[in-house]
Amino acid sequence: MQDLVPYDRLLDFTRNSFLHIGCSESDADTAATALLSADLRGIDSHGVARLTGYVRLWESGRANTRPRMRILHETPSTAVLDGDGGLGLVVAPFAMRLAIKKAEQAGTGWVSVQNSNHFGIAAHHALLAVARDMIGMAMTNASALVAPTFSAERLLGTNPICVAIPAGTQPPFVADLATAAAAHGKLEILQRMNQEAPSGWIQDKLGRPSTNPHELKAGGALLPLGSDREHGSHKGYSLGAIVDIFSAVLSGANYGPWVPPFPAYMAMPENMPGRGIGHFLGAMRIDAFRPAAEFKSHMDHWIRRFREAEPIQGKERVLIPGDPEREAESIRRAQGIPLLASVRADLEWLSGKLDVEF
Amino acid sequence: MQDLVPYDRLLDFTRNSFLHIGCSESDADTAATALLSADLRGIDSHGVARLTGYVRLWESGRANTRPRMRILHETPSTAVLDGDGGLGLVVAPFAMRLAIKKAEQAGTGWVSVQNSNHFGIAAHHALLAVARDMIGMAMTNASALVAPTFSAERLLGTNPICVAIPAGTQPPFVADLATAAAAHGKLEILQRMNQEAPSGWIQDKLGRPSTNPHELKAGGALLPLGSDREHGSHKGYSLGAIVDIFSAVLSGANYGPWVPPFPAYMAMPENMPGRGIGHFLGAMRIDAFRPAAEFKSHMDHWIRRFREAEPIQGKERVLIPGDPEREAESIRRAQGIPLLASVRADLEWLSGKLDVEF
Repeated sequence: MQDLVPYDRLLDFTRNSFLHIGCSESDADTAATALLSADLRGIDSHGVARLTGYVRLWESGRANTRPRMRILHETPSTAVLDGDGGLGLVVAPFAMRLAIKKAEQAGTGWVSVQNSNHFGIAAHHALLAVARDMIGMAMTNASALVAPTFSAERLLGTNPICVAIPAGTQPPFVADLATAAAAHGKLEILQRMNQEAPSGWIQDKLGRPSTNPHELKAGGALLPLGSDREHGSHKGYSLGAIVDIFSAVLSGANYGPWVPPFPAYMAMPENMPGRGIGHFLGAMRIDAFRPAAEFKSHMDHWIRRFREAEPIQGKERVLIPGDPEREAESIRRAQGIPLLASVRADLEWLSGKLDVEF
Repeated sequence: MQDLVPYDRLLDFTRNSFLHIGCSESDADTAATALLSADLRGIDSHGVARLTGYVRLWESGRANTRPRMRILHETPSTAVLDGDGGLGLVVAPFAMRLAIKKAEQAGTGWVSVQNSNHFGIAAHHALLAVARDMIGMAMTNASALVAPTFSAERLLGTNPICVAIPAGTQPPFVADLATAAAAHGKLEILQRMNQEAPSGWIQDKLGRPSTNPHELKAGGALLPLGSDREHGSHKGYSLGAIVDIFSAVLSGANYGPWVPPFPAYMAMPENMPGRGIGHFLGAMRIDAFRPAAEFKSHMDHWIRRFREAEPIQGKERVLIPGDPEREAESIRRAQGIPLLASVRADLEWLSGKLDVEF
């Protein structure tokens, strides 16, 4: 049912598609690499399956493929960046490079971004810092799908947080988590298969628990991490709110229910208080705290101890955040990226439309 | 069943107790204010109920009431602080003041702390930054009570994260959350009443789901925020791990299963890889990103919109993180702090022992 397509072929097609809609060579490269990092890491909902969505954003005039980004304000360790309506896939790596540059001088760098678009997976951007012996952080807000605790309305996106931490001989620690109980992509899989969702993932439009995977189309909402008050949903709500505030209230982007939707056919919210969607990128130089070799040897020790934890009977082993994605990447680089028939058909349609070889 | 004791009386007693065990006037003041901020905010498990615990730590030689703290390493926006075995109630505010000073110059300040002890509630320290028009962050590791996803062993503390954000006419946003599904204090309440815990809070020593509130004494563990894999426990595990790494691997404190216990009668772990417990404090100047007045007016707008969200039927309203604690504080400042009979007896015993008037 799933075709395997070599990574390089998919990368060429994606890069050429971005070139076709007006990106510079360098931006097309940056955007394609960022987008496909999701497919490599097994996060199929955020990868090439969204390529036509990005093209439609550009067609509708909601994404600018020739952005002139500029720094609106800065201090030695901070900046606010205006993404000029660019693709988040280009704006976020630019913002992370700025954070890294600041960290080189000041120890840490923190960049809040306004006027951007969806940036793919947070881990891709956070890992740019890891390659420089820094801890990388990346978060973004997104259009509202999650209801705060006790709310019948959805007011927050699935607002992911990624923290990526270098180690020595061990691979890096990479935690990349949506602040909802379940990522929207997981629900989309159940929708396609028309299967019930586990309880604790969604509520209906009145805020009653639901297991109907189509509930969001009927005004329902995803639940915050923690699912209900008794199990800490107010914590998931708090984390999603922190992402929203760091990404958008600090930068001047839209927040809460005013974050623009990804699908270009959906109307923009009314009375938007900011510009575009917001991100927050951070880099902390390891040796701004202690010698990098010392830190890495303790990180290796930390990781080994957790890996060696006694597993619960029936479970194979305790994982380190980032393990499943790294394992997916090593398989997919070798064997190719699996594409659903519907995604493949979508890409073939795009190939014809843009006259770009697939 | 619960006596009300005026805040000022409890503060005097606590301050005098810290003086008695050797703190300077200024440190006794800092420690007492930090400790009782928990009682004011309704977090009874972390307040004056722990005073005898701190005294016992001092008696056992595990807490130093005359610490000579020093900066081991620094850059314009970072520092590592050696707490010299001091009370976390004194070390953490010192570290936060250092973070604030760095933020004044560099835009942000980040201090990782080694060789400290328990610091009370994270919100108290984070709020020190809010008073200076900064976003405050505070986290700490703690002795292992939480099992990572798929682990039968407990390897992480309840490792709280606090983020406190100033607003304008609205009170600040204060999210202070343990990264476990339920804080240990909530389980202690059920233990005292001998009541079942909700499912999703704890597991037994083999990692099987349990509702026995006494399970931790039999080798069981608290579950991470998310409770099980299907509801995102790997996210709660990741968050607890990030707190552990920022607080201890960055600073040179102990991490994972090697974090020293709070009760002085418990043996110290063997082969400890660091010194004491670790904290991580951060301050970000609002106007390092955008003019403070502009930011605050958008924060007010954010808060109002979330407050006005349509509540689920049967729920009164949607809360902003920090609302319940602020409401508790206003009642308790006026009416006094409720003390359980057992806590009151404990304080009276301490009063006799230290010859400090209660």
